[in-house]
Amino acid sequence: MTFSFLSHLYCPKCMEKYQASLPQHLCHCGSPLLVHYDIDALKELWAPEDLKGRSPDLWRYHEILPLQDPTYITSLGEGMTPLLPLPTVQSDMDIGKLYMKDEGIIPTGSFKARGAAVGVSKAKELGIKELAMPTNGNAGAAWSLYAARASMDSTIVMPVDAPKITRNECALSGAHLFLVDGLISDAGKIVGKSVENSGLYDVSTLREPYRIEGKKTMGLEIAEQLGWRVPDVILYPTGGGVGLIGIYKALKELQQIGWIASDKMPKLVAVQSEGCAPIVDAWEQGKKESEFWAHSETIAFGINVPKALGDFLVLEALYETEGCATTVSDQDLLEEQKVLAQKEGAFICPEGAAAFSAARKLRKQDWIKSEDEVVVLNTGAGIKYPDTVQMEVPVLNPGDNL
Amino acid sequence: MTFSFLSHLYCPKCMEKYQASLPQHLCHCGSPLLVHYDIDALKELWAPEDLKGRSPDLWRYHEILPLQDPTYITSLGEGMTPLLPLPTVQSDMDIGKLYMKDEGIIPTGSFKARGAAVGVSKAKELGIKELAMPTNGNAGAAWSLYAARASMDSTIVMPVDAPKITRNECALSGAHLFLVDGLISDAGKIVGKSVENSGLYDVSTLREPYRIEGKKTMGLEIAEQLGWRVPDVILYPTGGGVGLIGIYKALKELQQIGWIASDKMPKLVAVQSEGCAPIVDAWEQGKKESEFWAHSETIAFGINVPKALGDFLVLEALYETEGCATTVSDQDLLEEQKVLAQKEGAFICPEGAAAFSAARKLRKQDWIKSEDEVVVLNTGAGIKYPDTVQMEVPVLNPGDNL
Repeated sequence: MTFSFLSHLYCPKCMEKYQASLPQHLCHCGSPLLVHYDIDALKELWAPEDLKGRSPDLWRYHEILPLQDPTYITSLGEGMTPLLPLPTVQSDMDIGKLYMKDEGIIPTGSFKARGAAVGVSKAKELGIKELAMPTNGNAGAAWSLYAARASMDSTIVMPVDAPKITRNECALSGAHLFLVDGLISDAGKIVGKSVENSGLYDVSTLREPYRIEGKKTMGLEIAEQLGWRVPDVILYPTGGGVGLIGIYKALKELQQIGWIASDKMPKLVAVQSEGCAPIVDAWEQGKKESEFWAHSETIAFGINVPKALGDFLVLEALYETEGCATTVSDQDLLEEQKVLAQKEGAFICPEGAAAFSAARKLRKQDWIKSEDEVVVLNTGAGIKYPDTVQMEVPVLNPGDNL
Repeated sequence: MTFSFLSHLYCPKCMEKYQASLPQHLCHCGSPLLVHYDIDALKELWAPEDLKGRSPDLWRYHEILPLQDPTYITSLGEGMTPLLPLPTVQSDMDIGKLYMKDEGIIPTGSFKARGAAVGVSKAKELGIKELAMPTNGNAGAAWSLYAARASMDSTIVMPVDAPKITRNECALSGAHLFLVDGLISDAGKIVGKSVENSGLYDVSTLREPYRIEGKKTMGLEIAEQLGWRVPDVILYPTGGGVGLIGIYKALKELQQIGWIASDKMPKLVAVQSEGCAPIVDAWEQGKKESEFWAHSETIAFGINVPKALGDFLVLEALYETEGCATTVSDQDLLEEQKVLAQKEGAFICPEGAAAFSAARKLRKQDWIKSEDEVVVLNTGAGIKYPDTVQMEVPVLNPGDNL
């Protein structure tokens, strides 16, 4: 049996093709590369029944993932996160059906584990020994830990303001870790120079083609968990946007192989912070690409990305699905974080809270309809961000009464 | 179809029976109560094939769980955590086959979610509106969040020194949260008085019979993940010991209903810290109960329990399975935490690290044999304990080189 139906890589801008058997980065035209599979063979040889009895992790979809030899699977048990019904918040927001895809229940505590699992596995298959990347925290944590699992070296550069716990994760993994007194874009420049000079394998967002394949498994899982159909709306907190691009790619592929109906796509929503909203700006102006957002700032650190390399792919997915892009304030997202904990017992991350806040806003604007089925991505565990919760707690002495 | 084969409650000390249709706490003799199922009916009517196609969470075992009406299921998607092979550490320790049951990949980031999911669900079925408990942190976090999910109130008392993130989780859930300048035993006394005076439902460790049923699903999952058989040794970091009691109970039940062979039990190992080792002391002296450990102290906060209510059940499980009890130092467990991150990419909690450290020690002593198949419980995510990782990281300026 064929383990993967990987065919080749291609450039979504100039359509140039590339071999997948060699390490590849950007197209010569500057665009990220995407992975293509043999759709006809998949259609003929792969069926939903084949998944029965497979373990509940993202490798259950190996036919449509890029790894060709299972020997190189580098797994910490990632994937098949809960698609959790939220009946109380659903009523509260007056939405027909509301689900959270909870990416907090995953190794390293964030959805970055998916991209790292597939990206590191494929890098290992390609013979890579040492990788390098800039990060806002969670991606670095995931890639450095998966690299450790694969016995690969990693070099990670993150802003000094990135969440402290992600710094711990990288340090403990044995990565070569550096902080930069700046933004992820500054970290990116430092990594870029180092890659040029030393030949490290660059795994910056979308600079290698396989992270997106890991992320797309969120889309595969949502479709499987709904019984091979799609919801009306999916909201995604958007920094680099790889998850949104991945979900869109996954659902298109499922349509092409006939596993879901081909006449409906969910409206995809890119959620950004008021303090960093380049994609929203571009979408509002009907543009195909975003512009660098100067002096960006938000408590939802994972979506503090002033200019995403894949912005044009995110915008294409929004236009193609008749989705939208919208912003929320830090104050609103912190309020929504409380709502989810108190009404549903879910301690979500600030980025996930931003997406829920956007759902509330879009419902109020009647963009989301009262009968819609809506899936919100919570991209990580709230416990990774202890500083976003402020409170006063009474202190008793032994022997006191309540 | 019968959803649960729950029969009744019984006292493992004096064998008195109790109705499960009413809220129950300790036996009149002072012992915790255990749940009994209709084993004959289970044997006849329930088979491993019935699990196929069920969702990968602990509710897949509902026939042998105490909830009778699925309406009351209070779930955040908990259970079916990875049983992860650790080939590199396995070689490093010279152990035949080494697995980690990774309880970090679960809602609220610790194995306490299992007890809370089943305990809160059953409390809701019994009509309880408000619960109360003392905690070393993780249990309070889990129970308060699951209570919020079930629209129940909760009162939580924890030591001021408990991990800060667990304090966040309780506070954000809307629990009535109090800190005490003392140990969990001091918190327990405060809760005890409040329960007596106000009629709150006491969910302290083993004071209600259902938490253990949630914890036992770790044992059910280990057996299922190994293909309905048991390993040679299971190591468990032991504070209150409910997980160990639960795993033992689960495996006995699986033997009784014929799902696993009845002639082999894994040797169960209770791992404690040198700074708090009442069970180890009792086991070394062949005693049936432990004594209060004064001035207890360890960085593995979850196993800082000076006297466990269920100590006699833990000790019985050790004696019955020809297991043992052993201690590790804080220094050794911190070292082991690094080993797991650097060699396997797993950022485990200090309690889990204690159990791995004990595996290394017991292998060196040849108590664990080189051909043994060993499962170590990592009871929570390392990210919940940011203060246990200390490091220096270089800070660059934008434009610097690596």
